[in-house]
Amino acid sequence: MISTIKKAYVTKSIVANLSAKAKNSLLQDIATNIDKHRQQIIKANNIDTQTAKSLELSVSVQKRLLLDEKTIDSMTKAIRDIGKQPEPVGKILDGWKTASDLNIQKVSTPIGVIAVIYESRPNVTSDVVALSIKSGNVIILKGGKEANHSNKAIVRIIHDTLIQHKLPVDMVTFLDNCDRSSTKELLGFDRYIDMVVPRGGSGLIQFVTTNSTIPVVKHDRGLCHTYIHSSANIDMAVDISIDAKCRRVEICGAMESLLVDEGIAEIFLPKVKKELESRQITLRGCEKTLQILDIDKATTEDFDTEYLDNILSIKIVQNTAEAIEHINTHGSQHSDAIVATHFDSATKFLDEVDSACVYLNSSTQFTDGGEFGFGAEIGISTNKLHSRGPMGLNDLTTYKYKITSHGATRG
Amino acid sequence: MISTIKKAYVTKSIVANLSAKAKNSLLQDIATNIDKHRQQIIKANNIDTQTAKSLELSVSVQKRLLLDEKTIDSMTKAIRDIGKQPEPVGKILDGWKTASDLNIQKVSTPIGVIAVIYESRPNVTSDVVALSIKSGNVIILKGGKEANHSNKAIVRIIHDTLIQHKLPVDMVTFLDNCDRSSTKELLGFDRYIDMVVPRGGSGLIQFVTTNSTIPVVKHDRGLCHTYIHSSANIDMAVDISIDAKCRRVEICGAMESLLVDEGIAEIFLPKVKKELESRQITLRGCEKTLQILDIDKATTEDFDTEYLDNILSIKIVQNTAEAIEHINTHGSQHSDAIVATHFDSATKFLDEVDSACVYLNSSTQFTDGGEFGFGAEIGISTNKLHSRGPMGLNDLTTYKYKITSHGATRG
Repeated sequence: MISTIKKAYVTKSIVANLSAKAKNSLLQDIATNIDKHRQQIIKANNIDTQTAKSLELSVSVQKRLLLDEKTIDSMTKAIRDIGKQPEPVGKILDGWKTASDLNIQKVSTPIGVIAVIYESRPNVTSDVVALSIKSGNVIILKGGKEANHSNKAIVRIIHDTLIQHKLPVDMVTFLDNCDRSSTKELLGFDRYIDMVVPRGGSGLIQFVTTNSTIPVVKHDRGLCHTYIHSSANIDMAVDISIDAKCRRVEICGAMESLLVDEGIAEIFLPKVKKELESRQITLRGCEKTLQILDIDKATTEDFDTEYLDNILSIKIVQNTAEAIEHINTHGSQHSDAIVATHFDSATKFLDEVDSACVYLNSSTQFTDGGEFGFGAEIGISTNKLHSRGPMGLNDLTTYKYKITSHGATRG
Repeated sequence: MISTIKKAYVTKSIVANLSAKAKNSLLQDIATNIDKHRQQIIKANNIDTQTAKSLELSVSVQKRLLLDEKTIDSMTKAIRDIGKQPEPVGKILDGWKTASDLNIQKVSTPIGVIAVIYESRPNVTSDVVALSIKSGNVIILKGGKEANHSNKAIVRIIHDTLIQHKLPVDMVTFLDNCDRSSTKELLGFDRYIDMVVPRGGSGLIQFVTTNSTIPVVKHDRGLCHTYIHSSANIDMAVDISIDAKCRRVEICGAMESLLVDEGIAEIFLPKVKKELESRQITLRGCEKTLQILDIDKATTEDFDTEYLDNILSIKIVQNTAEAIEHINTHGSQHSDAIVATHFDSATKFLDEVDSACVYLNSSTQFTDGGEFGFGAEIGISTNKLHSRGPMGLNDLTTYKYKITSHGATRG
């Protein structure tokens, strides 16, 4: 392991100093080569999906694993889109002259070496590689066993393109056969790796957080709420609730808990129940909700559960303050929404809910790098440090201060 | 321990939502009360300095421990200066409309709960408290045993001022009698603490990095270099070398290694030797240096050593590329300088040296929050994530995305 990591590490200055032109031309060629050799990827992916089927992995895992013509089209589109993004390295973020006549420039730079540990979805491989190339970082990938053939097929094409560009293949390092104990070893290499991004279930996140001496930017769970204020437009509130819950139940931006103001509960709840149940969503309500709806009772655990499934918990709250308090206590600081027309309540909610993304009159399912305009995302950070929310190219940079003077001494 | 931390944690929303006016008036009153009760602090400090003396702690520790009228003046000045800084919370950092007609605002917010683990210098206590109040964060302080009486005297005055302002004293929590095992316990409370900043020796940094599940922003060592390019102005090169080494040898921004281009070594080295030796600096040189100067030989370890003392290692390099390579291999990514008049070499150095602060024709001793114009600093980050270099108020904030629309669903 250590020799592999060191080999990746030493390519750092080559990658960091690639010109914008060189990076963009590399990305174009990676996209072209993936297009050209897509049958290799699909063939490799067949092995993974067959294995998943025979191992009876969950339907959602099987779904996320699948690469077809359409997913490969979107993979190459993402690579090309990332190429077209503005150059993220060398941006002057700030600048000033100090009292001692120093000229200070704060300039964006690559982070250095980034490790991403992820599960299932093999298209993450090409997204992450493209983002790391564009931002001048060395990337170390540790994909899930279940997607191993697909990931390796994608990486092989990327390596061929690197060779074609006379660049070191170790700048994109894929860790094959990396079990828990070698992952643990990896997480101790803070001398060589500057950042680790775990994407996956809470077991993985917990394991990485506990064992890493490398700074971690977590893509952790999303226990998202939508709060329907008493001033809400009822039709809008129903539409947003349906979208936030049903568009895709398995993603981290999906609503898991619906909070309803007691001033609107009697009108709103029957309407939303009808729509949700017609979409096969099972509802679980608090005591007060049960007085209005004939549904199962929610336990305390329900309000702390990220279902990622066709289940929704419902709670009636007295006012905006109680909604905020509930979200800040039971939520995961990911994405939470208020539906309201009342200005004070809306701004109080946006100000005081301590989450990465706070929405007014919008679905929480918008929390996504693509939707935010970032081209693609390396993940959605539930950390508060470094990056919060969808992480695009700029989140893969750090900065340095360039300080010049004409011989200044502090004296 | 856990009950203390929870008590601090629950004050989070109160502190985060304090108005700019309330925070500034609180800071003014803390400064006034420290001024008024300075004899209490000096009395408590006497106990600490006497103990340090009787325990025969090093002179530099004793020096850093001492609070006199002048240090207390600068403590209260720092608190007042922090009060005068622009409000760091609620700044709109960015904003745009997306393809789906969402209005996104990226807004600065407090981080939440910050723990600072530090040694010796008791004036850090008031600096850190003032910075955390201004940035809307709850602060947990763990100071060194050697400064315990001083720290407690300062915190007592701050607590009295909080009571006077009808604010919870737990928003400034000082951990008394916190040994290694309780520090270890503290570092596991990632549920309640958002960020931990260790300031101190490498033993402390190592301990925190290894044991913390809370994100760490390290204030680690400074193995700083000054590289004298062949195009350098000789007088300026001597002045900068003297300042970078001798102004204060014990700080992290002090030069530890002098790199000299072979094209200028024969003229420069004798001059700088004379000046450095007249200031009691012991020189240790590489093989090539020994051909010019009559000094001791530097070992390989010398070039990896942060002396924080009256010792300097000297190495002759062939060119800018070798200087950059040496710094990126042996340095600590803190502060490194080039003295040069040649444009290409200067920009190559500023671009390619991977350090938080890279200097042209300036002393590395300028790496300091005050010098940068930040009012005061919570530390100098040697991390690449979140913050790099001197950390001021803005580094104690994170951000959230506030997203509004008129009923947008992702559909």
